[in-house]
Amino acid sequence: MHRCQPPDAVVWPQNVEQVSQLAALCYGQGVPIIPFGTGTGLEGGVCAVQGGVCINLTHMDKILELNLEDFSVVVEPGVTHKALNTHLRDSGLWFPVDPGADASLCGMVATGASGTNAVRYGTMRENVLNLEVVLPGGELLHTAGLGRHFRKSAAGYNLTGLFVGSEGTLGLITAATLRLHPAPEATVVATCAFPSVQAAVDSTVHILQAAVPVARIEFLDDVTMDACNKHSQLNCSVAPTLFLEFHGSEQVLAEQLQRAEEITQDNGAFHFSSAKEAEERSRLWAARHSAWYAVLALRPGYKGYSTDVCVPISRLPEILVQTKEDLKAQGLTGAILGHVGDGNFHCLLLVDPEDPEELHRVMAFSELLGRRALALHGTCTGEHGIGLGKRQLLQEEVGAVGMETMRRLKAMLDPRGLMNPGKVL
Amino acid sequence: MHRCQPPDAVVWPQNVEQVSQLAALCYGQGVPIIPFGTGTGLEGGVCAVQGGVCINLTHMDKILELNLEDFSVVVEPGVTHKALNTHLRDSGLWFPVDPGADASLCGMVATGASGTNAVRYGTMRENVLNLEVVLPGGELLHTAGLGRHFRKSAAGYNLTGLFVGSEGTLGLITAATLRLHPAPEATVVATCAFPSVQAAVDSTVHILQAAVPVARIEFLDDVTMDACNKHSQLNCSVAPTLFLEFHGSEQVLAEQLQRAEEITQDNGAFHFSSAKEAEERSRLWAARHSAWYAVLALRPGYKGYSTDVCVPISRLPEILVQTKEDLKAQGLTGAILGHVGDGNFHCLLLVDPEDPEELHRVMAFSELLGRRALALHGTCTGEHGIGLGKRQLLQEEVGAVGMETMRRLKAMLDPRGLMNPGKVL
Ligand SMILES: Cc1cc2nc3c(=O)[nH]c(=O)nc-3n(C[C@H](O)[C@H](O)[C@H](O)COP(=O)(O)OP(=O)(O)OC[C@H]3O[C@@H](n4cnc5c(N)ncnc54)[C@H](O)[C@@H]3O)c2cc1C
Ligand SMILES: Cc1cc2nc3c(=O)[nH]c(=O)nc-3n(C[C@H](O)[C@H](O)[C@H](O)COP(=O)(O)OP(=O)(O)OC[C@H]3O[C@@H](n4cnc5c(N)ncnc54)[C@H](O)[C@@H]3O)c2cc1C
Repeated sequence: MHRCQPPDAVVWPQNVEQVSQLAALCYGQGVPIIPFGTGTGLEGGVCAVQGGVCINLTHMDKILELNLEDFSVVVEPGVTHKALNTHLRDSGLWFPVDPGADASLCGMVATGASGTNAVRYGTMRENVLNLEVVLPGGELLHTAGLGRHFRKSAAGYNLTGLFVGSEGTLGLITAATLRLHPAPEATVVATCAFPSVQAAVDSTVHILQAAVPVARIEFLDDVTMDACNKHSQLNCSVAPTLFLEFHGSEQVLAEQLQRAEEITQDNGAFHFSSAKEAEERSRLWAARHSAWYAVLALRPGYKGYSTDVCVPISRLPEILVQTKEDLKAQGLTGAILGHVGDGNFHCLLLVDPEDPEELHRVMAFSELLGRRALALHGTCTGEHGIGLGKRQLLQEEVGAVGMETMRRLKAMLDPRGLMNPGKVL
Repeated sequence: MHRCQPPDAVVWPQNVEQVSQLAALCYGQGVPIIPFGTGTGLEGGVCAVQGGVCINLTHMDKILELNLEDFSVVVEPGVTHKALNTHLRDSGLWFPVDPGADASLCGMVATGASGTNAVRYGTMRENVLNLEVVLPGGELLHTAGLGRHFRKSAAGYNLTGLFVGSEGTLGLITAATLRLHPAPEATVVATCAFPSVQAAVDSTVHILQAAVPVARIEFLDDVTMDACNKHSQLNCSVAPTLFLEFHGSEQVLAEQLQRAEEITQDNGAFHFSSAKEAEERSRLWAARHSAWYAVLALRPGYKGYSTDVCVPISRLPEILVQTKEDLKAQGLTGAILGHVGDGNFHCLLLVDPEDPEELHRVMAFSELLGRRALALHGTCTGEHGIGLGKRQLLQEEVGAVGMETMRRLKAMLDPRGLMNPGKVL
């Protein structure tokens, strides 16, 4: 959606020393620096709006250190979340944060990414223990101290947290120490269709209130389900649907499943089915993760635009219903799906790239949705970040003093304004 | 331990407008400002080392907003964690972070506090959604935007995280929006004695690796157990001991308990007993929470000094064994206990206030312990903060670039250096 603006040059450093030298050189010469992970970001974060040098970090792709007993790992910026989990396969541990694309873990740090497992395991914010950062001038910062990988600390200001979600505007992340989790002993997936959006969201709230430790709870609207049925050969009802996943021992799973079924049935669910076998589970999640492509396939030749908001969970039903109405009023094709356990959802909009008027309506719709979320005490982005397109909404979200504080932070770490300029602020 | 240095004046503002006016007045006049919660901090955070005005926030003690469906609450700075949980009693929700003292929730934000439940529910860092902060000059900042209480966001820099653990040096926290959790349906406590420290810690690691969702896992050494037996009329073995707690449904608890028992027995535990009834559970936790006073009672007339470090969990056995030897070598009476599920532990030292030489040995011991933790990739404080006494250790922990970044952060928000001066940096 954000028109691609190429940099003046792309470089592929092999190690942190080279990144540091590059940063020092660019900074000294007044050249913009754009960090690049895997380019899957959805808010135009890697557009070189002022030209400059794109520092592509994909060649730094080593897993530097794995501490099984300490549940931690140190990765270079080219390692993706799938690559890490493949590496961990027989270790008994895994890294749960899973955006739909196979993004780089340091790119995920940079955008404050999350995904389907956040409701139980947290987002990147809760799963980063330490960062190695090349500051704009080339200096090397270890946000929690060199080589440290403790689980918690009260020592000084939280520098790690400052760089999570900074979208490449404060420095280049050259290594991340991440928190790992024990792999679940057993897993069960359930799908469940509802007569209304309200019934699906009410079930979500009740499941959370009953302290059922659900690992994933994803909402897919009727449009998404229709697209998934066609694209991934599912045979589900075309209705508001929840995909749920539970992790634990066999016995615990049976109990969780039973509770979830009771709760959804109390809310009028008309179809509840579960799958234990790895194959069937993979099929369902592959369908969920391909929803983007499934929706795209509804209108061949169209482009997809994904927007992302997050609200307090009690406000989900009203914003979802309003959004459906807005789509209809604007004559737009859009699918709604999301991580409802966190109050977070996306709208995937289809737009004819040849039709500037439709493009305009899509942008207006996206802004309206952001403002609806803000009016309900929510945020204009739950996980995709601000990038280029949501800078106005950020101002409305955090207010004048918040913006001023962010601007001073930026000026403190990047006084010449050369780190990924034009993003976030 | 930190000699009390009184401020020039103490004020008790009644509302945020008064806090803001006070801050503006002091700042304009070059007068130091010291925020005061309930004064239970252990690192001298409220000492007025340069005189000035202590802003005591205890009169602002309202629970401003409770959003049951959204699992969130907004509290003024005078509300303590016990007061909040009393208020929540019949709501089905609770706030799990529980330092041993009944501290104010905003003081807990300020120190990045945690406690016995952090292994399952996280520390303050993971449980603060938004903060209202009076900046040194009197301006009002809402770190996540006015009135917002979403569960996650990727919008701009993480200002909330910057103030958690800032120990009153960046601004006055006048309200906190906290994340609540569903109250556990049922609870069971177990205690378990071991032949060695190593066996107790190995059990901890194995329980975590087996993904048993333990809610609390506390270590108490032989000295602590002896003190608790005497002070709280327990009848436990005088040996390295774990106190465990599990939360869930009846059926889930039975399974968790059985697994924990198997694991501890594999590690040579010689006594495992569990308690389900509220009364017996309270008795055990009351003993744990009174450990400080129990240890003090070992030497009437002595004062207690508590130090706090955190290491990667695999390094716990060696640092605990070394610490025991250091105590012996230094001829000091000290008890070791802690939140071992996080790798965090405390050493409670007894010191004759009339004996400057012993005082000196205690300080030297505490510094040595901090350095041992640092050498094992740990932190010099897991939860008590830096305050006055650990500033040198902080420098060793985060290094020159880390310190420089923290100093610039401080200068950015507090250019005149008047917010709680002499602390942290
Ligand atoms: C089909 C699809 C599904 C998706 N689903 C999700 C989802 O469920 N949840 C979610 O959170 N996101 C999702 N995304 C968005 C995207 O995957 C995430 O934003 C991801 O974190 C981006 O990582 P990346 O490595 O591709 O970063 P890039 O796109 O390369 O960069 C993103 C931003 O981070 C900066 N950056 C990248 N690497 C670094 C670094 N090492 N140091 C400093 N700055 C850096 C860039 O400058 C840019 O501003 C999805 C995207 C697609 C295409
Ligand atoms: C017996 C005992 C057991 C303890 N156990 C634990 C434990 O298990 N875990 C743990 O983490 N801690 C523990 N502590 C330490 C203490 O309870 C925590 O540090 C607590 O968070 C301090 O809160 P307070 O309100 O008493 O803060 P205070 O002592 O009043 O202040 C502490 C610091 O925070 C600042 N501050 C306080 N309120 C504000 C505000 N509203 N805005 C800005 N700055 C503010 C002060 O300036 C000071 O620097 C224990 C203490 C005791 C005495």
